[in-house]
Amino acid sequence: MRLSRYFLPVLKETPSEAQIVSHRYMLRAGMIKQNAAGIYSWLPLGFRVLRKLENIVHEEQMRAGHIPMLMPTLQPADLWRESGRYDAYGPEMLRIRDRQDRDMLYGPTNEEMITDIFRSHVGSYKDLPMTLYHIQWKFRDEMRPRFGVMRGREFYMKDGYNFDLTKEDALHAYNRHLVSYLRTYERMGLQAIPMRADSGPIGGDDTHEFLVLADTGESEVFYDSAVTDLTFGDRKIDYDDHAQCAGVMEEFTNLYARTDETHDADLFAKVPAERQRTARGIEVGQIFYFGTKYSDAMGATVQGPDGKVVPVHMGSHGIGVSRLLGAIIEASHDDKGIIWPEGVTPFHCGIVNLKQGDAEADAACQALYDSLTALGLDPLYDDRNERAGGKFATMDLIGLPWRITVGPRGLKNGVVELTSRRTGISEELPPEEAVARVAQVYAGLHVRGI
Amino acid sequence: MRLSRYFLPVLKETPSEAQIVSHRYMLRAGMIKQNAAGIYSWLPLGFRVLRKLENIVHEEQMRAGHIPMLMPTLQPADLWRESGRYDAYGPEMLRIRDRQDRDMLYGPTNEEMITDIFRSHVGSYKDLPMTLYHIQWKFRDEMRPRFGVMRGREFYMKDGYNFDLTKEDALHAYNRHLVSYLRTYERMGLQAIPMRADSGPIGGDDTHEFLVLADTGESEVFYDSAVTDLTFGDRKIDYDDHAQCAGVMEEFTNLYARTDETHDADLFAKVPAERQRTARGIEVGQIFYFGTKYSDAMGATVQGPDGKVVPVHMGSHGIGVSRLLGAIIEASHDDKGIIWPEGVTPFHCGIVNLKQGDAEADAACQALYDSLTALGLDPLYDDRNERAGGKFATMDLIGLPWRITVGPRGLKNGVVELTSRRTGISEELPPEEAVARVAQVYAGLHVRGI
Repeated sequence: MRLSRYFLPVLKETPSEAQIVSHRYMLRAGMIKQNAAGIYSWLPLGFRVLRKLENIVHEEQMRAGHIPMLMPTLQPADLWRESGRYDAYGPEMLRIRDRQDRDMLYGPTNEEMITDIFRSHVGSYKDLPMTLYHIQWKFRDEMRPRFGVMRGREFYMKDGYNFDLTKEDALHAYNRHLVSYLRTYERMGLQAIPMRADSGPIGGDDTHEFLVLADTGESEVFYDSAVTDLTFGDRKIDYDDHAQCAGVMEEFTNLYARTDETHDADLFAKVPAERQRTARGIEVGQIFYFGTKYSDAMGATVQGPDGKVVPVHMGSHGIGVSRLLGAIIEASHDDKGIIWPEGVTPFHCGIVNLKQGDAEADAACQALYDSLTALGLDPLYDDRNERAGGKFATMDLIGLPWRITVGPRGLKNGVVELTSRRTGISEELPPEEAVARVAQVYAGLHVRGI
Repeated sequence: MRLSRYFLPVLKETPSEAQIVSHRYMLRAGMIKQNAAGIYSWLPLGFRVLRKLENIVHEEQMRAGHIPMLMPTLQPADLWRESGRYDAYGPEMLRIRDRQDRDMLYGPTNEEMITDIFRSHVGSYKDLPMTLYHIQWKFRDEMRPRFGVMRGREFYMKDGYNFDLTKEDALHAYNRHLVSYLRTYERMGLQAIPMRADSGPIGGDDTHEFLVLADTGESEVFYDSAVTDLTFGDRKIDYDDHAQCAGVMEEFTNLYARTDETHDADLFAKVPAERQRTARGIEVGQIFYFGTKYSDAMGATVQGPDGKVVPVHMGSHGIGVSRLLGAIIEASHDDKGIIWPEGVTPFHCGIVNLKQGDAEADAACQALYDSLTALGLDPLYDDRNERAGGKFATMDLIGLPWRITVGPRGLKNGVVELTSRRTGISEELPPEEAVARVAQVYAGLHVRGI
């Protein structure tokens, strides 16, 4: 993309309404614009990242054998009356009446609807195990929406639902989700720690939240520091292997890590003192096993191998896709702006032309642009007639991990400058080598763009 | 995908509520499920096609230089009060009151919101031309929703908006959209004819609708039969070239083609009698130029090269993405089921195992599956323990363009059967050749899946 043809409305001033750094930078970098309290437009740069996160979530869910589909944003109230949650849900549910005076709602979650779909079409244990998921806009009418996309009202979320014949199978689905989530967050450059959590209005006993450590997190968390040494890495997973998934679950949850909701001071005291940590965390996902709560209430049953009709065991599992942008920025920035992890960056590399209009500099930039594009990478070429300082400030603010700077002086010596946004370290090298270096960084990291 | 691990709830009976063939087949093929009047879930097979259409639209819009972003589904009423449309819109607008008693609405279209974004961030002619678009769920509270996704209430639509300094530039944007739409529909296997249309509540003088001819279309159309001989083909387009885009516009709109809304009997009479046609058509897109209607009302201005502040010239341009599924099926089916055009098929090829459990047949199917997958294709392997007749009926119903049938008898002779869904013609050939043939069909047609 050439910046002169893009829509990147960066702001010089810090918007006064933004209290946390991710909100400030998303506004300043022209990623979002507020349209109403807690309701945002995703401007082109923000949309690119959102779509990348969505694509990573799809890839990892499909890899785990989960089946993508899509449910609508609006739901009939009657479904929620069946489960008893229509009256229980409180004012955060946005209730709507249509022109025929039917009670509708903007879905905050989809347990009822997916259970209805399941009971309409599935009747035999032979169709199990089954996990269906979707990524869709949801609405929670927060009393005090704030922190930008971190606590918006209209938000984008992946929610998946498993249907299993037995509790054991459902707990495998739970573990499978945990494994796929660990992979997902790591691909996004995030360390998200599973912590035992409270089930809230979804119901159920087994539940873990995934928390990203950040000073601006909404939850207080208590953990054994050894938990932050764990990494998922590139281990090979057979998602059908119950023992392997249970092993990962065990490995990532046996150390103490809890939010304030479930914190147990006595248990925490048993963690070696030098490893006891208190911090704040941002919730970026949650998994639940809730047994037959919804299948009982809504009659979602299957005939088992013995001919007996039994309610299915279910769980639900969510990743807050839009809030992840905020979480990633909270975890990865400096005082100049965002620092995107390579796995989710909106553009792979910036190209800064120090002397736009200089024939040689223009040609060198264009050649870099073409080479990177031919390798399947998306460069952002700042081809505007602006001063170098302004171009650098914009690149730093929007946080592309790599920048190639091209100027007449370097070109005389046959070199351009390759700069890492994270370390700030620059290196002079021939253009072909700069391209090769950038390509090498992204090898194996490839995520679909829009 | 192995069918035994998929969720494909095909129906044997024809649902009584479905009046048109696309609605019937989408229900029978397990593509959609109605959740409320005019509100549907996209079951896994339907979602695959929806996502492919979405990806084609993105690819062609970006190719034309249009910039993707995303606006929210809910909008504040105040924006619509500025343009005067809040009161004018009528009961098809779904009006919502949030917990703070603020008037909101579920967006049926986005002229106001995009104009607000533009005026907040753009002030100079130097940032023009600019076309922003998004693909988002919209809502129209139809009195009588029907025909499945063809006239749903919650629907998925691409809407794009151009901002230009002059009327001439805006008309180029109009032509650019026409060109990109012709390409888009052809990639989807559709012939969509641009017809002079009526502007309706959006306003404006210049507008064309794109119509797909089908007996079940909602509009009566009148056209010169020569218009159906035009094809876009693989011509190279420079979307910055005003003359080239105007040439395509001229070529595709100078023959008589109008809907009943704009039909002119006297003009039609001048078409040679043997080329006069009357038919029905399904609207799958529309482009508008409406000048400064919204920029005047909402103060969207730029400073021109002469320093004078002028309102921008705008247009809006839409493709009904979810309704396209219905239109494609209406245009491409037979009495056994859907026939997907190769460009949009949910899976590229079916594999039918005639004797599941037979070691040789199972191994041959798995090898085909692996070969196709390694080539980047998505096969659907019917590995269920079902009779051949049932497997064929399912494949015919869901409409994959190619099917490979594997049975012990053929394998003895070293062959499998490759069948075209469209022609019904089968050929026996070695498995490697069947794979090569399928790969050849899809070469150059590659569209991203989910």
